[in-house]
Order: sequence, then structure tokens, then C-alpha cells
Amino acid sequence: MAAAMIGRFQPFHLGHLELVRQILNENDEIIILIGSSQANYTVKNPFTAGERIWMIRDSLIESKIDMSKVFMINATDDENNARWFSNIRSSTPPFKILYTGNNFVRTLLKKETIIIKKPRLLEENLLKGSVIRKLILENNSKWQDLVSESVKKVFREIAAVERIRSIHQAWMDSPFSEPKKYAE
Amino acid sequence: MAAAMIGRFQPFHLGHLELVRQILNENDEIIILIGSSQANYTVKNPFTAGERIWMIRDSLIESKIDMSKVFMINATDDENNARWFSNIRSSTPPFKILYTGNNFVRTLLKKETIIIKKPRLLEENLLKGSVIRKLILENNSKWQDLVSESVKKVFREIAAVERIRSIHQAWMDSPFSEPKKYAE
Amino acid sequence: MAAAMIGRFQPFHLGHLELVRQILNENDEIIILIGSSQANYTVKNPFTAGERIWMIRDSLIESKIDMSKVFMINATDDENNARWFSNIRSSTPPFKILYTGNNFVRTLLKKETIIIKKPRLLEENLLKGSVIRKLILENNSKWQDLVSESVKKVFREIAAVERIRSIHQAWMDSPFSEPKKYAE
Amino acid sequence: MAAAMIGRFQPFHLGHLELVRQILNENDEIIILIGSSQANYTVKNPFTAGERIWMIRDSLIESKIDMSKVFMINATDDENNARWFSNIRSSTPPFKILYTGNNFVRTLLKKETIIIKKPRLLEENLLKGSVIRKLILENNSKWQDLVSESVKKVFREIAAVERIRSIHQAWMDSPFSEPKKYAE
Amino acid sequence: MAAAMIGRFQPFHLGHLELVRQILNENDEIIILIGSSQANYTVKNPFTAGERIWMIRDSLIESKIDMSKVFMINATDDENNARWFSNIRSSTPPFKILYTGNNFVRTLLKKETIIIKKPRLLEENLLKGSVIRKLILENNSKWQDLVSESVKKVFREIAAVERIRSIHQAWMDSPFSEPKKYAE
Amino acid sequence: MAAAMIGRFQPFHLGHLELVRQILNENDEIIILIGSSQANYTVKNPFTAGERIWMIRDSLIESKIDMSKVFMINATDDENNARWFSNIRSSTPPFKILYTGNNFVRTLLKKETIIIKKPRLLEENLLKGSVIRKLILENNSKWQDLVSESVKKVFREIAAVERIRSIHQAWMDSPFSEPKKYAE
Repeated sequence: MAAAMIGRFQPFHLGHLELVRQILNENDEIIILIGSSQANYTVKNPFTAGERIWMIRDSLIESKIDMSKVFMINATDDENNARWFSNIRSSTPPFKILYTGNNFVRTLLKKETIIIKKPRLLEENLLKGSVIRKLILENNSKWQDLVSESVKKVFREIAAVERIRSIHQAWMDSPFSEPKKYAE
Repeated sequence: MAAAMIGRFQPFHLGHLELVRQILNENDEIIILIGSSQANYTVKNPFTAGERIWMIRDSLIESKIDMSKVFMINATDDENNARWFSNIRSSTPPFKILYTGNNFVRTLLKKETIIIKKPRLLEENLLKGSVIRKLILENNSKWQDLVSESVKKVFREIAAVERIRSIHQAWMDSPFSEPKKYAE
Repeated sequence: MAAAMIGRFQPFHLGHLELVRQILNENDEIIILIGSSQANYTVKNPFTAGERIWMIRDSLIESKIDMSKVFMINATDDENNARWFSNIRSSTPPFKILYTGNNFVRTLLKKETIIIKKPRLLEENLLKGSVIRKLILENNSKWQDLVSESVKKVFREIAAVERIRSIHQAWMDSPFSEPKKYAE
Repeated sequence: MAAAMIGRFQPFHLGHLELVRQILNENDEIIILIGSSQANYTVKNPFTAGERIWMIRDSLIESKIDMSKVFMINATDDENNARWFSNIRSSTPPFKILYTGNNFVRTLLKKETIIIKKPRLLEENLLKGSVIRKLILENNSKWQDLVSESVKKVFREIAAVERIRSIHQAWMDSPFSEPKKYAE
Repeated sequence: MAAAMIGRFQPFHLGHLELVRQILNENDEIIILIGSSQANYTVKNPFTAGERIWMIRDSLIESKIDMSKVFMINATDDENNARWFSNIRSSTPPFKILYTGNNFVRTLLKKETIIIKKPRLLEENLLKGSVIRKLILENNSKWQDLVSESVKKVFREIAAVERIRSIHQAWMDSPFSEPKKYAE
Repeated sequence: MAAAMIGRFQPFHLGHLELVRQILNENDEIIILIGSSQANYTVKNPFTAGERIWMIRDSLIESKIDMSKVFMINATDDENNARWFSNIRSSTPPFKILYTGNNFVRTLLKKETIIIKKPRLLEENLLKGSVIRKLILENNSKWQDLVSESVKKVFREIAAVERIRSIHQAWMDSPFSEPKKYAE
């Protein structure tokens, strides 16, 4: 039986990896949903969906996870949240369990035929994409302890640190909005 | 002759109901436009368009309003505001008057062939969807005085209070954005 | 308990009206879904969603149907048919039964929690929007026997016959596509 | 006062050019609307909006037309035709006259505050984008007499003849649909 | 180095499987792009993107293909074909080679930095999704020789044969359009 | 050879004009991209794309700039920034140089075949659309020194000052969001 997890993976970190392991221990297969897949080069979503899939796949192989049990699937946002899960269903193989600690998702999916399970989390406060992006902006190398070697390798290939900074800089020039491409 | 009013109805409250009465006193028919109909399960738009239509219809019947004089029609947002009214026109029967106290709408519709009338409002500061949602979050039962019995009944059927809280909680975890469905 | 029916209503005809009556005989309330609501001024969809709602409402009142039991709600198309019903759910009050004679809809909704009922139909072959539009194009006045007095009245107010013809003419000039607004 | 014309310009031909001249004789300025601007590399729309603007601009300069009197503006399609003109209004400077021989556009714009004028056309049947594309497919060099030298120059730079043929070929392999990018 | 192939996989058949093998023989990794991923329950696209991924994955495992070398990624259509490849790039890990026999794709990608390679094909005329769907409609069991055991297993789980037939039937009732969900 | 610049032009000001002059000194032609063209009647985007084109054209003519060397083209936003430039390419004639001082754009376009040049800017802090809109809101007439006579003339024709104020007022009533059209 397959189970799913969902994240934006900006970037994929060791907490995500731990959850993948937990799910594969308890289920036959895992469907990893890449949320906000339509967004990239923004403050909250610096990486493209393709780059995130790349980081995830390489991290899982680094961790010796059996890729024949893993699906990675892009999921776009939908302001009509009531139809969001139905959209997910249409783009994935069938699954019966969703791992999420988010009460809002629980509320949203109350009428759907899906079992919600709570993930075991380790060091929840540190292991967040937003924390990692903040450490990078503060030039604090501790972020390197929070991601896999594979993520660090992809970071070098796509100049990820420089990208996070230049997006942030564009945003600082215009603090109330997403990074602007346009001259005022 | 038909006249229109527009709101997001998150939720429909006694101020809205009073405006419906005023419009039906002064016109043959009313078109109630449900704004931001595409959004739901968000902080500012917790209810689906269908749930809002349900609350409105039941409130109007509770108030003995003749439903043969009422249209309820969904209206999506459009960042191209200059074409928004034309979109509304295409989804409603013809109407000649729009009731709104909003100067911006007045500006927006300056070139359109529509008469704008100002609604008489009662207790404007209290009777707002945002006030009702805030009272609910503060556990202040006064919100119950601001909506009809029918709205309270729908609230129980859809667990509306719990929904408003869980959306707010998800938002608090991520204060700069809409409630997030995704693990960071 | 509410039940739903769905059509494009191009235009609303006596077969549709009969189905409304059947549904209200067997259920407390009816939700009339106006399909392809985003399309208008095309060969298959000459009327706007608003004009269709107008025709339906006036026809129902003409037939003394109690409008406090009727919802009329616009439904846009979705190439992702697997999520189409979920979209409908988000824009309507809850309903448990859908009346449709269409096997495809039956297949599409197999996994949804909805009861499908078959409509009793009278003179199925004649009572079709496509037949009515064809009769109009052929200048055959029999179409007038297939719609209510109210529909004929709306037709006069919006010059519907002329519209169907001018759309058809534009289409004939370019037989492989929808009516064209653009010079070749 | 400004007047507008609209076409898909696949490609811009001498008939279009003649209409530009007529409009500038009778008005101060012209707004040239490039229809179906969102489509390209399809059977009916082989050229991008940018390539079409390029052909138009160079043809007008070749004809010594004063470019300070010309606007060229992209216009996307809209299945909601009732709001299409409002969308055009939002993307162009104001204009009072639209030149079109199309009865459908006349019907569509009946409620809008716009004067419709009929273009004088020369050799209407030959001077059509579809005819030019057909001549190219038939290897008939007569198409070269129907467009300006500038269009022929752009054609060479973008390998337009080869493009029209390869799109057609992809379409022939799958006659009921637009050219397919996907293996069956 | 990664290479890509693209198809709609309605359904995934032995010709597709052969191409996967060829690509993995000549490259380190394969990116399988599921085209028209937004469409489902239509005549040309009966299966959802998720069902297609399911068929592909199970077929590859059945063929003992190493899943750590395979990406399967959904790709939506875009009428703006000139930006379609850029959209693909944003949703996949980097790749340098695309396998396609389609001249149109070759034309479309002329300006992109990508190497196009021609697939070796076996029994091209028989091995097509359209042929398989036709055989099913004709009740000809030969289609079973054209797909893997895994595809046949998924077909049984989702009642695929029945689905293809009911979509076709809905389409036959309305031969000029996609299957209709709406009563005329 | 053509070069491009991009701005939102809310409104077009003397800094923009200076950059146009610089680009035309150093290149044969200029492509002026109107960013966020889909947005209007919002706090950050009060003017429609058409009004912005109108201001630009009249300002350039006022400055005796040769309009046969100028393209003005609308560019919509795209949350998928990785495909944004490809979309621009499809809607413009070819260009080889982009003038921008924005490091983020530089990062975004790193893989594209385009030369980025830095504009010479005069009084950068004052010459910004946001500054001009702020001066207008503060009733400070200094904004009139920052735009051309032509812009001031268009401002009078469209009642721009009043519009900026009424949008701001609507926004002040709801400080966390864009101006609202809907009653709460």
C-alpha cells in the first residue's frame, strides 16, 4: 500500500529524509508530493520543481533508499483548496495514507477517504526550509548540517546560495512584495 | 428592474441581510454576487462559494424574503480589474443599479453604464465578516448576535468554528502568508 | 434533501423543464448546474451564463415552481475531468443525488459519494439544444414549440435568433473552427 | 482620433497593409490588434506574436507609413467572448472606431460604445492568411505576390516555409487534432 | 548524463517500453515526460496522469529496469508552444538529449540547447496508443499483445476498457466535440 | 540590433525616458516591455497596460524620439519565473541585449543567451513609480517635476490622481490586502 507526504522542499532537508524513511518503514511505497511546484525564483520558493526533484532523488539514493518504491510528483497550488486534493488524486497513483502534522490539512481533508497519520519529527524547529534559507542569508554555515551531501552538491551546480541572496536582495528593495523583475 | 450587491459573505451577516431588504424595497429583483468565489479554506475566505450560497439562501427564507426575486451568483476575482465588471455582466441577468459604499468601485465603474447607489448601513463597524471571524478566534460568543439562526445552523453542520481556528493556526505558524498545506 | 441536474441550456427547453419538475417531485430541493458557463457567443454556446440563468428562472416562475427550492449555479469546464466534480462540490450547497442519463458521467463519478438517477425523458430526440439551434438556422418555426413563453421573451430581448445566425455565418466562413473574430 | 483593426496576421499580407492605409487616411492613429497572440507553432497560428509584430512593423516602414501613428498590441483569445472586448480595452489606448467586415463581431459588440466601419477590401478571396499558407504547402510560389518584401525577409530569417510544412506534416499524422508533440 | 522522451502514454505500450530500454542503453538516466497531463476522461486522453505514471512504473519494474535511473514527470499542454520547452525545463532535472522522431518537435526546438536523437522503432504502425484504443473499441483482443502484463493489471483495477467505451459512446452522441458531461 | 528594457511604468517617468534615450544611442531599436500588464486598478498597478502604452508613446513623441525604432509590448507576470523570459521571447521581435540594474534578473537569465547591460541612472531614489504615487497621496505637487508633460496630460484625461487616491483609500480600509471590491 502506498502512503504520501507533501512539502515544498525549499530545499529538501534531513527532516524530510527522516520522514521518507519512517513512511517506507510503515508502508510499501511512498508518493512524495512537491508542493507549489509552479513557483520558482521567489523568496519562499527559490528552486524550480525540477531542481527539487533532483535534490530529493539524489538524497534518497545517497541514503540507499530503494527508488522502485518512490514516486515524486509535482503539485501546483490552488486557491480553491476544496478541490486541491482531487487535483492531487488525478496526478498520482492511488494512495490510502497521508502523513502530515498540519491541523489545517486534517480539516481540509475531513470529507475525503484518506487516513491521516502524524509524522515523528526530529528537531522540528531547526529542520525547516525557512530556517535553512535564513541561515544562508546570515552567512551561517550551520545550514550545511541540515541537508544531505547530495543537496550540497546540487547547490554548487546551480549556484543556489548566490540565487537565494540575489532574490532576497531584490525583495529587500521592495519589502512588501515578491522579488521584482521590473524597474519601478 | 434588478439591482445588484456584492460581498464575500465570509460569513453572511445581519448587515448583509439588511441591505438585501433595502434593495428589495427599492427594486423588483436582487442579484447577490458572491465575490472571491474561487477561494476557500483561507484566512480571509474560510467558506466555499457553495457554503456561502447555502447560508444566504437559508437566511433569506428565514426572513421570509421572496426567493423568486433573488439571484445568487458566483464571481471570481480578476487582477485585470478593468475587465472584472464585464465578466460579471456575462454571468448575470441584466441589472441597472449596483449598491456599494466603496469609492474604489465607483472609480472602477466610472465608464460603465451602471447606476451606483449607497447602501444604508447599520452599525457598520461591528457588522463585518472580519469582525465576526475575529470574535470567533477570541472565543467571544458575541459573534452569534451578528448572524441569522440559519447561519448558525450551517456553521454547526460544517464545523465552521473549528475550521476558522485551524486555518488561523496554520497561518500563525507561517505569519507572512496564507495558511500552508506544505511542510517547510 | 437536494438533488442536482446539469445542462448547458443553449437554450433551456421543455425537456429541461420536465426534468426540473420530476426532480422536485422526488426531492426537497434542486440544484441546476449551468455547464460550460465560461463560454458564450460560440456555435455550441451562443448564450452567456447570465442569459441562461435568466431564461431558466423566468421559465420556472412561468411554471409556478417554488423558487425557494431552486439553486442555479454556474459550472465551468475542466479538461481535468477527474477534478471537475470536486470543483462543482465547492460551488454548490451539498446534494446527494445527480440526475443524468449519461453513461460517461456515471463512469466519471464512480468513485464519488453520489447517487446517480436516470431522468424520465419525453421525446428525447427532439428536445435538444442542438435541435433547437438547427431549426432556427433552417428558419423552421417549430423551435417555438420546444421552449417556454419566457424563453421566447428573453430571445426577443437579446435578439437571440439573429445572434445564432451571425455566429453560424462567421463559423461557415471558417468551417474547421469556432466563429472567428479575426480577419485571416 | 484612433481607430482599430484586428487580425491574426498568419502572416501579415497586402490586404492587411491596404486596410492599414485606409484607416490612416480616415483617422489620426491606428491600433493594430494581433489576435490569438497566445498561440504559435500550430496549423492555424504558425508564427509567434513577436514574429507577427516584426513582420507588420517592417512592412509598414517599407510602405513609408508614419510609425508615430501606429500601435501594435497583442490580444489573447477568450472563450468568454462577452468579456473579450473589455479585455482589449484594458490593453490599448482609447479608440472609437473598429474596422471589421465580420457580422459576428458586429453582433458581439452591439452593446459596446464603439463605431464599427466596414473595410474596403481588394481581392478578398485571395488575400487571406489561410490561402497563403495553403499555397506554401502546395509549393506554389504565388504566395510571394501576396506579401510585402519585408515579410519575405522575415520568412527567410525564421525559416517560415519549413516551419509551416513541418507543422502541417505533424498534423497530417494525426488529422483530427493540432500538431502533436507527443508520441502516441 | 540524462536523456528525455515524451509521450501521452494513453496507454503505455511495448513500443514505449522498447524506447525506454534504448535510452537507458545509451544514457545514464531517463526522464519520461507525461504529455497532456492535465487532460483525462477524454477520447484521446482517457487516463489520468497518475494512472499513466502507475502503468509506466509497474511496467518498468516488470522489465527489471533500475528505477533509480528513471524520472517520470507530468507536462501540461501550452498553446504557446514557443514557451513549452522552457516550462518542461523548469519541472525536470537537467537533461541534454531528447529522443523524438517528430519533425515538428525538431523545428520547435531549433533554438534550444538540446540534442535531438531519433528513436529506433519497432512495428511503428501497430504500436500506437490510438491503435490500442481502437482495438478495444472494436472488441479485438489483440490489444493485449501490445502492452505489458502490468498495464493489463492496472486496466483491470481501474476498469479501463469500460471507461474507454463509455467515453467513446458519449462522444458518438455528439460527434463534433469531446465527450459531453452536459445534457443538451 | 534591438535592445530591451522592462518596467511596470506606474507611471512612466523621466528616469524611464532617460533610459530609452540611452538605449537608442547605443542600439538601433528598442523594445519596451510593460511588466505586470495583466494588473490594473491596484495599489501597485493603478494604470491599465493600455494607459501605460499611451503615456509612453506620447512622452516619446514629445521628446522627438523616432517611433519607427520603438516597440512597446505587454508582458504578463508568471509565478514560474524560469519560463518568464521564454514567454517574453515569444511575444517580441528578436533582441540581443537587456538593460537592467537588477541582480535578480541577472541571476534569473544566467542560462539564457542574452547580454545584460546596466543602465546609467539619474537620481535613482527619487525617480521611481512608488515615489511618484506616494507624493500624489501626500498631496505633494513635486511629482509633476518627475514626469513628462504628456504623462500629465494623460493623467488629466483619465483622472489619475483621483484614481490613485480612491484605490489607496479602499486599501487603507483593509490594510493587509489589495484594494477590495467586496463588502466584508
